[in-house]
Amino acid sequence: MAHLLSTVCSLNISSCCKNPQQLLVSQSSSGFPVSFSLPTSTSRSKKLILNGKGPKRCSTIYAMAVSLSQESKTQPGSSFPQKTGEAASPKKVMVIGGDGYCGWATALHLSNKNYEVAIVDNLVRRLFDHQLGLDSLTPISSIHNRIRRWKSLTGKDIQLYIGDVCDFEFLSESFKSFEPDAVVHFGEQRSAPYSMIDRSRAVFTQHNNVIGTLNVLFAIKEFSDECHLVKLGTMGEYGTPNIDIEEGYITITHKGRTDTLPYPKQASSFYHLSKVHDSHNIAFTCKAWGIRATDLNQGVVYGVRTDETAMHDELCNRFDYDGVFGTALNRFCVQAAVGHPLTVYGKGGQTRGYLDIRDTVQCVELAIANPAQRGEFRVFNQFTEQFSVNELAALVTKAGEKLGIEVKTISVPNPRVEAEEHYYNAKHTKLIELGLKPHLLSDSLLDSLLNFALEFKDRVDAKQIMPTVSWRKIGVKPKTIAA
Amino acid sequence: MAHLLSTVCSLNISSCCKNPQQLLVSQSSSGFPVSFSLPTSTSRSKKLILNGKGPKRCSTIYAMAVSLSQESKTQPGSSFPQKTGEAASPKKVMVIGGDGYCGWATALHLSNKNYEVAIVDNLVRRLFDHQLGLDSLTPISSIHNRIRRWKSLTGKDIQLYIGDVCDFEFLSESFKSFEPDAVVHFGEQRSAPYSMIDRSRAVFTQHNNVIGTLNVLFAIKEFSDECHLVKLGTMGEYGTPNIDIEEGYITITHKGRTDTLPYPKQASSFYHLSKVHDSHNIAFTCKAWGIRATDLNQGVVYGVRTDETAMHDELCNRFDYDGVFGTALNRFCVQAAVGHPLTVYGKGGQTRGYLDIRDTVQCVELAIANPAQRGEFRVFNQFTEQFSVNELAALVTKAGEKLGIEVKTISVPNPRVEAEEHYYNAKHTKLIELGLKPHLLSDSLLDSLLNFALEFKDRVDAKQIMPTVSWRKIGVKPKTIAA
Repeated sequence: MAHLLSTVCSLNISSCCKNPQQLLVSQSSSGFPVSFSLPTSTSRSKKLILNGKGPKRCSTIYAMAVSLSQESKTQPGSSFPQKTGEAASPKKVMVIGGDGYCGWATALHLSNKNYEVAIVDNLVRRLFDHQLGLDSLTPISSIHNRIRRWKSLTGKDIQLYIGDVCDFEFLSESFKSFEPDAVVHFGEQRSAPYSMIDRSRAVFTQHNNVIGTLNVLFAIKEFSDECHLVKLGTMGEYGTPNIDIEEGYITITHKGRTDTLPYPKQASSFYHLSKVHDSHNIAFTCKAWGIRATDLNQGVVYGVRTDETAMHDELCNRFDYDGVFGTALNRFCVQAAVGHPLTVYGKGGQTRGYLDIRDTVQCVELAIANPAQRGEFRVFNQFTEQFSVNELAALVTKAGEKLGIEVKTISVPNPRVEAEEHYYNAKHTKLIELGLKPHLLSDSLLDSLLNFALEFKDRVDAKQIMPTVSWRKIGVKPKTIAA
Repeated sequence: MAHLLSTVCSLNISSCCKNPQQLLVSQSSSGFPVSFSLPTSTSRSKKLILNGKGPKRCSTIYAMAVSLSQESKTQPGSSFPQKTGEAASPKKVMVIGGDGYCGWATALHLSNKNYEVAIVDNLVRRLFDHQLGLDSLTPISSIHNRIRRWKSLTGKDIQLYIGDVCDFEFLSESFKSFEPDAVVHFGEQRSAPYSMIDRSRAVFTQHNNVIGTLNVLFAIKEFSDECHLVKLGTMGEYGTPNIDIEEGYITITHKGRTDTLPYPKQASSFYHLSKVHDSHNIAFTCKAWGIRATDLNQGVVYGVRTDETAMHDELCNRFDYDGVFGTALNRFCVQAAVGHPLTVYGKGGQTRGYLDIRDTVQCVELAIANPAQRGEFRVFNQFTEQFSVNELAALVTKAGEKLGIEVKTISVPNPRVEAEEHYYNAKHTKLIELGLKPHLLSDSLLDSLLNFALEFKDRVDAKQIMPTVSWRKIGVKPKTIAA
């Protein structure tokens, strides 16, 4: 059916759909314009308003009542029909950044669980790939095709709002239109190396993430004050202290007095710092405005398939193995698959929390189903197991042996500034208490991850593998990637 | 001589000055353009380049080699001639925000101590007054007249770079031109109520402060990597924990292990939060790049006269008593002077650290004279005494009695969200160890503060006194002030 579907920016507008999905396209206010083209045939456009006001720098285009559900009408027999008899009025969840790695998997999982889902995304993650010459290991469909395919398979609608949360006018319209009960906010620049490429990317990362989150907080206060914010933080906010890491807060007895205070933060990139800033901003608004918020301090995510993305090739999630966006275990599996030595940075004693992407979606759902109280700033450490980089390399080597692949490991100079040997023991019990059933990094899982990398190994671009971004060498001159 | 001096934006350019001062005027990249007019007579202009490049949103105007020192040539007999026999090559200090309340006093103090001083300022603090209908109690001169007067009195040059530190191109030029040994960074939006007026001011405050500081850090790394950053933080970063506040770090023993970690932060306005973000960003760059930095977590500053500003009316510092920019003690003195009841917010148990502006300038000089080591992120708590709001009100009442003024106190609903009764005990020994000799808030000081308020009481605008900004009622609609 792919030939029937429009491309990302060619809007196919129908005036006869029962459940029209709304699409808003706006230019980024953060220096990263989202490209678009007008519909080639405008005769069927219901509303298309070019709204470029005088003093504002960015113009906004609203394209209302865009149907993405035609395919379902031509495919009455879907392979995953909507269940009946379940909650008639599922909760409405806005997934900001719902086209990204964690966001897409989460949006589908929530939709599958009968939440009414809206994706808000400016698609800038796809632009980063173009600009840096990177690509997902897996071929991924446009967000429009993804949503149409989901509808055709399940009968479930996912609303789509394309725009930038740094553009408050766009965000306001999305909030007023969708009226979310919960907002899951993945919509940030999420790579530490990206934030360390050059000054402009460092500034972009902090501006985009901090101002975007401020806008989300203001939108909740103004338009949906009961709405629960589920915000993606990172375990990297804590750094690597020489004491146990608690979940968000620590009780300190000092000179005979005791208080429970925010756990001290020691982030080690402009990206990680942006999440620290977010956490402080959110905590304040919980106290001052009664916002209800859950900060999910997530570990390093691995894996690609979830129950929902596995349903069809067009639902396939992205899988990054490059030096900028690739997370450690994903990168190691690709390296093993193509016979590239595993690249351990420095001594390899860097220990972090890890989790399967199937647990990411489970954790977010648990947080939504068990919302924070009004005024509560709740912090969950979202990971299931701890590994050092050397331990990961050893696990991949062992899994490779089972598949008859010889895996070598090399140490490369650490491009980051971080402790390479350190104590690390982080608590992560709150999500377990809410019912999380972890997928652990067993050999079988590793096999399937590795097998997956092998399946797509012809798509691997070896130039993307090595680290190219140095924490110490970052400069003020804009860096561009040669062809 | 005032009639001989040009106004803020009318540039008087001389090509014959021995020590030409440099002036750069740029449009703010943060949404607050700095207005300017071209010189009425351009025949004497040495260089004036209109530089509006294609893809950039803001144009930059460089006006090089602007002399502000004519007056000194017409006034050979100055009342405070340059001393001879002192250090031939004083350290070069860039004072960002050098036209503001603390910045101006500091710039003059450092110049008087024979540091070579450059002021970097976009003058946006003066624009805030225009936009909000506020004014300093004291009449203040333009930055150009201030600098000319200082030169005429002392023979000392202060360089002037007018522009926005959020504009990295401008900041780069300033750094490359002046080559500072130390940068004192006051150049931030510094009012908590201002940051709580509306969404756009909240966003402006965090963008302006966080991105400005990031740019300063990048400029130091790129152009002057030995340069010592002296950054103005605030005691408000700590909030009001139920344990003693240490200076930046706290040693925590937890489950049998011990580490010294950043002191937990609990800021309570978007302004205070911006300083928390700065602190985290700076700490990271000290570790990653070897930046040397001192974070001065300053208490509430009171007073107006310093040795240098007292030398001439044209050097007079600003004095804010309004509900947005006025600090507590300054506001109380003005209220007492005009017979307005002292406005205690809520229960009045809010306790904070306070210091005399004469100690601000002393502290900054001590930090510069004793720089941090490469890679060191040093935090000093910069205040001399603690008072609750009720204690301040009682002191002003008592001082009023001595002057024959009857002072009343009223409680007004607290516009902020803060504890009104709490434990507070903050350490502040590091600056004392470096040699700080505090001016304490004695009755005599209070008398002179009060007398000062009395001297200018005809300039008081009673409408400015009451708080108008609510932490809880802040909304997304831009707030404007009616005439």
